Amino acid sequence: MRIVVDAMGSDNFPMPDVEGAVQAARLYPADDIVLVGDQTRIQNELKKYDTQGLKIEIVHTTQNVTMEDHPGDVGRTKKDSSMLVGMNLVRDGKADAFVTAGNTGAALAIATLHSLRRIPGVKRPALTSLVPTAGETVALVDLGANTDCKADWLVQFGIMANVYAQRVMERHNPSVALLSNGEEESKGNALVKEAGDLLRQTSLNFVGNVEPKDMMAGKIDVVVADGFVGNICIKSMEAVGSMLFRLLQEQVKRNPLAILGALLMRPALRSIYHKADPFEIGGAPLLGVNGVVIIGHGRSNAKGIKNAIGQARKAVQGNLIAAIREGMTQFVTETHEVE
Amino acid sequence: MRIVVDAMGSDNFPMPDVEGAVQAARLYPADDIVLVGDQTRIQNELKKYDTQGLKIEIVHTTQNVTMEDHPGDVGRTKKDSSMLVGMNLVRDGKADAFVTAGNTGAALAIATLHSLRRIPGVKRPALTSLVPTAGETVALVDLGANTDCKADWLVQFGIMANVYAQRVMERHNPSVALLSNGEEESKGNALVKEAGDLLRQTSLNFVGNVEPKDMMAGKIDVVVADGFVGNICIKSMEAVGSMLFRLLQEQVKRNPLAILGALLMRPALRSIYHKADPFEIGGAPLLGVNGVVIIGHGRSNAKGIKNAIGQARKAVQGNLIAAIREGMTQFVTETHEVE
Repeated sequence: MRIVVDAMGSDNFPMPDVEGAVQAARLYPADDIVLVGDQTRIQNELKKYDTQGLKIEIVHTTQNVTMEDHPGDVGRTKKDSSMLVGMNLVRDGKADAFVTAGNTGAALAIATLHSLRRIPGVKRPALTSLVPTAGETVALVDLGANTDCKADWLVQFGIMANVYAQRVMERHNPSVALLSNGEEESKGNALVKEAGDLLRQTSLNFVGNVEPKDMMAGKIDVVVADGFVGNICIKSMEAVGSMLFRLLQEQVKRNPLAILGALLMRPALRSIYHKADPFEIGGAPLLGVNGVVIIGHGRSNAKGIKNAIGQARKAVQGNLIAAIREGMTQFVTETHEVE
Repeated sequence: MRIVVDAMGSDNFPMPDVEGAVQAARLYPADDIVLVGDQTRIQNELKKYDTQGLKIEIVHTTQNVTMEDHPGDVGRTKKDSSMLVGMNLVRDGKADAFVTAGNTGAALAIATLHSLRRIPGVKRPALTSLVPTAGETVALVDLGANTDCKADWLVQFGIMANVYAQRVMERHNPSVALLSNGEEESKGNALVKEAGDLLRQTSLNFVGNVEPKDMMAGKIDVVVADGFVGNICIKSMEAVGSMLFRLLQEQVKRNPLAILGALLMRPALRSIYHKADPFEIGGAPLLGVNGVVIIGHGRSNAKGIKNAIGQARKAVQGNLIAAIREGMTQFVTETHEVE
């Protein structure tokens, strides 16, 4: 297997990107890791590690996409960017998957409009967040690729994430739900109600509406939302999580006994922090394009990149793209869609 | 001042409702508290407390709204419910405010369609959640009264919550923002962008888009959202908060040293828990109807009811309703709205 890693992706590129790639190369010695980006900077970074025997290649590019770049432009203006060149390696069959911690909007636009392009039948590719919960990880789709959705797009998000849950998360007959303001069928906005009616007609294991608390109980495999709502949901969760950890730190600092208490509780606190750490998971798979793409957080550390590469490997091993293609064909039949 | 309390509102009615009313009557000895509901049950409950000298009255009703009641029906089918009779006391000028921990949808429908009715110019009344943050409390509107909103409704939510922030939360020139998936003007779904364009035309101190993390930093006074999105936001936050507290309890139980640690950290943990306790605030004001209505959580305890009564008092003292009426007149002028 050959996995392409954008060396110029993360906020602190190329450090975490290269270090994560080295860690993955050690962990998966049979695989090739291709680092795309500025050759000199990558080489200087690689020198820090013992890379003897590791299958790491470099593909040199002269440009890189920044967080300031307008997503709609970079596919035209930065043809020699690590993102576009890296993705084209997958498009051209020279590699199996692409991992980046770069500008999400740009990755989405490049994948959809300039490089891999959409799988036939897919109306809108979607980002899937793998959310740690009290139970099993939940796939929340869409994380924000599409801020104004139509009901049939939501159905497609459900189909694609269902395939991801089967092939990558190893769930049998995944449960699929719509994120809503109440469990009852009567709850939801107009979009959720319409999507619910459509989802009930598919062969998905659709279990209806769920509220965020049901999602966080970890009993659902796939939760579908409009990208705007999915984004607000995940960001609201992150906001409260960081706020509570910060408040705890502040409160503890004020009291010497509490500092001792925190030391004694350290393993407990650490295990929770670990559970909530997004870099344990790696990144968000972009579903609906002709190739495996995992988009990590801009703040990704080496562990985040390594785990994103692990995710990409699982997606390739699970034949994710072929399975989504099949799912799309089935969607057309089930919803009597005329292409 | 006379405050009406729905004695049959909370999930455990009439216990917390009556106890909270007694606590408020003690706290505000100059005010009259009117308990509406089944006279016998209220009297039996009142017997548990020393009510000598407290100004508590009972208005007997034979029906009560349940969580199973369909919001659209109760105004017609339960004319002698504590909710409708209680609200009519405010409508008829016999009391100044109404507090209930009952069925939110029913309270909304009764207020809007059967009792207090809308303030002239108000398109949709909205529920406002007072969200505890790392800084000051934020007013998040709409909490779920309206699941499919138009842009001018959002503008009105902003105007009404702005008045609430001035008159009840005592904020000077409150900052008003739209909840969005990014801070930039280009972010947001179509509704948010359209509402942003309208809000920029008003005299509100509109500061643009905020993400959940900015909201939780407590630097904004009013955050406006579509009721569906506002509901998902608040429920996502609650879901993570309770999950983290539960995980912490579980982890601590597994380790005797961590139990000791938790005991030492107790004041720190308690102060955070206290900060996040919704019953410290009381309830959600329903803005846009001709009277002060505070809707508490169904799970309200006595403290929640007492604090909701405190909130209602502040709204009456701040002349909330007259100020919203004025705000609505200004809205018509500023947006060149033809009534």
